[in-house]
Amino acid sequence: MDASRAKTYVQRLATAARSAAAELATTTGGRRDAALRACADALSDARADLKAANEKDLARSEEFGLSAAMVKRLTLDDQRIDAMAAALREMALQVDPVGKAVAAYNRPNGLRIEKRRVPIGVVAIVFESRPNVTSDAAGLCLKSGNASILRGGKEAVHSNLAIAAALRAGLAAAELPAAAVTVIDNPDRAIVPALCRAAGLVDLIVPRGGKGLISAVTEAATIPVIKHYDGICHVYVHAAADPDAAERIARNAKCQYPGVCNAMETLLIDAAVAEAFLPRIAAALRAEGVELRGCPRCRALVGDMAPATEDDWRAEYLDLVLAVRIVDGLDAAVAHINEYGSGHTDAIVTAEIAAAERFVAAVDSASVMVNASTRFSDGGEYGLGAEIGISTDKLHARGPMGAEDLTTYKWIVTGQGHVRE
Amino acid sequence: MDASRAKTYVQRLATAARSAAAELATTTGGRRDAALRACADALSDARADLKAANEKDLARSEEFGLSAAMVKRLTLDDQRIDAMAAALREMALQVDPVGKAVAAYNRPNGLRIEKRRVPIGVVAIVFESRPNVTSDAAGLCLKSGNASILRGGKEAVHSNLAIAAALRAGLAAAELPAAAVTVIDNPDRAIVPALCRAAGLVDLIVPRGGKGLISAVTEAATIPVIKHYDGICHVYVHAAADPDAAERIARNAKCQYPGVCNAMETLLIDAAVAEAFLPRIAAALRAEGVELRGCPRCRALVGDMAPATEDDWRAEYLDLVLAVRIVDGLDAAVAHINEYGSGHTDAIVTAEIAAAERFVAAVDSASVMVNASTRFSDGGEYGLGAEIGISTDKLHARGPMGAEDLTTYKWIVTGQGHVRE
Repeated sequence: MDASRAKTYVQRLATAARSAAAELATTTGGRRDAALRACADALSDARADLKAANEKDLARSEEFGLSAAMVKRLTLDDQRIDAMAAALREMALQVDPVGKAVAAYNRPNGLRIEKRRVPIGVVAIVFESRPNVTSDAAGLCLKSGNASILRGGKEAVHSNLAIAAALRAGLAAAELPAAAVTVIDNPDRAIVPALCRAAGLVDLIVPRGGKGLISAVTEAATIPVIKHYDGICHVYVHAAADPDAAERIARNAKCQYPGVCNAMETLLIDAAVAEAFLPRIAAALRAEGVELRGCPRCRALVGDMAPATEDDWRAEYLDLVLAVRIVDGLDAAVAHINEYGSGHTDAIVTAEIAAAERFVAAVDSASVMVNASTRFSDGGEYGLGAEIGISTDKLHARGPMGAEDLTTYKWIVTGQGHVRE
Repeated sequence: MDASRAKTYVQRLATAARSAAAELATTTGGRRDAALRACADALSDARADLKAANEKDLARSEEFGLSAAMVKRLTLDDQRIDAMAAALREMALQVDPVGKAVAAYNRPNGLRIEKRRVPIGVVAIVFESRPNVTSDAAGLCLKSGNASILRGGKEAVHSNLAIAAALRAGLAAAELPAAAVTVIDNPDRAIVPALCRAAGLVDLIVPRGGKGLISAVTEAATIPVIKHYDGICHVYVHAAADPDAAERIARNAKCQYPGVCNAMETLLIDAAVAEAFLPRIAAALRAEGVELRGCPRCRALVGDMAPATEDDWRAEYLDLVLAVRIVDGLDAAVAHINEYGSGHTDAIVTAEIAAAERFVAAVDSASVMVNASTRFSDGGEYGLGAEIGISTDKLHARGPMGAEDLTTYKWIVTGQGHVRE
């Protein structure tokens, strides 16, 4: 498909989505919740179809060169299907983000001003691999009154289309327009750039996946993008840290689930406590199978530690590997984090109020943990319900994004024939 | 300058701004307010320099082909200088947007979650003509703890640099870094695209000016953009409108200040009341010198009305010209507004609750007025204090944008050694 055909193709889909969005904008939350439950039922009912479609994708996984981990993420078994349906039912139980007043007040002239949450309109989500993203993202968009356009990876196209068919059955059961959820079935590569430039039809694009996908979308986009880069998360053990808490947090942040974006990748230890703390934590982490790579001062304190290079400070291992550095005080820790971190989640362990406050103010990250593991950086743990992802951008939404982050607001000004003097 | 030199040039400025932003992020609001007052004093003290610099720009206004209106906007007289200084003093009186909690709650496990407003970082503003934008924008960024990079039009370069020198004197008096406000003095055209692509150094770019400027920035940008397109605002006179209120609002919306973005450009009249209302409003508007352009049904009711073409429905006249259309009910009015409007500000005049609620929900605009003039769509009228502009985007900020809209938030999670199970 050339760029002009892709443009026409996207315009047709997005125009239908836009009209569905206009209908969604005036539905009650009850109707949207009923649709979410109907979609959950439809997914359960379509269990056999979903697994058959998924088989077709799995049969081609070698052709696409998928790793074992990717094949695992691609697989739809009963447990995954139940989890998708359960997530939709849980969304239906959450408070409706639409209609919530962000602010409301009277002006001295008697005008009533209200800043009220409303759906954004049409949200496009471009993602790779995991088919459950299709139902999660469509569900969150529906919850928040948005029409969604979903473009998954070619390696999951059969699974995604089977999920889409189930969701569409759910929408029909709830008498909502089919174009409220559009799954793009055409694998043509020209479609994503066309989606990225559909100003006036698509309001937001959210890329989820590898860095290649994210930077391709960012480069091409003329519409707003919210990105979900991965995390290079730090734990800084301050001079006034409780050593037991520091050990517990560092172990949890590294080892509890090393393959995810909120796992720790670099441990920073204050020079004031390094001599006492580093040998202890090194032994504890090694006992859990963690490979340590350290700065020269670390290596002088602990034997057999590989040297950390500049690349290690920027690495997202997603594995049982950890970079360790001794820093001279809080400001040096902050400087390291702001230089090498990804603005995702960074923690301080300290008993000192002033140190915590300074760290919180100075670290330029979406989530800053004080005496808590980086692993808590998650929509569920923050009580948001389902999450569309974790934004490492600063505009519109930062950190874990829930249904409310898929809304904008409208100013509603009510007078009694007021005119401006 | 070629693209690579422009990149180096912008990187140098933006790196300095970034380091100033890091310093601003940990200043108290009191220090930022003191700096705003010092900047106001410095502008007043530099009165003679400002006028001399402005003379140089005015002397070249013919060379740049500026219209009389543009020359007027470019002119810095005592009144304008006083107004710039007064605006900075008023900002200093506003509540500090930084540190405000957007949400704060405890989780069942005892974790404390706080979503706290923090500065965005480095904000770039690209604008044309009016030199007072330099001090307003720099002031709002400073108020909200951001470093600003300002790039004004070449026609105002001397004025802008004189203002920048005064602001810098104010920053120095308050012992804040000079790079907290950077005015780009180089007129090279390659600089704006380089600014638009300074990901990691510049967090947000706000273009203010003509459509050419705005679309050039949108096309080039890989960083977030918030746009300020102009307004095609509607007033819809519903079947249940109080005719006196409808006349008062329509006259005010069109005539009180026709050259601004929140003035009405199209009047929609419900067919149910057109016969009674149209002749009356037409006479009233014509008495104020308004030229009317109508749909065929309007022209059948009122003599001597020029026909409105498709272009008129999309026109932003910014003048005493008005398009008028008779519509068959509320849904037709909404359809017209969502098709031809610019999502800026649209009003309904009605005595009926259900009609107002439906209009408010269905019209996809930043501000929706019920029984009030579109002219109230303004940061000052909404009580925001100074405004950086009126966003016609939906993401991050919509409608009038004040200092708080120049902040993002940070999640602060506080535990007592909490780890995730």
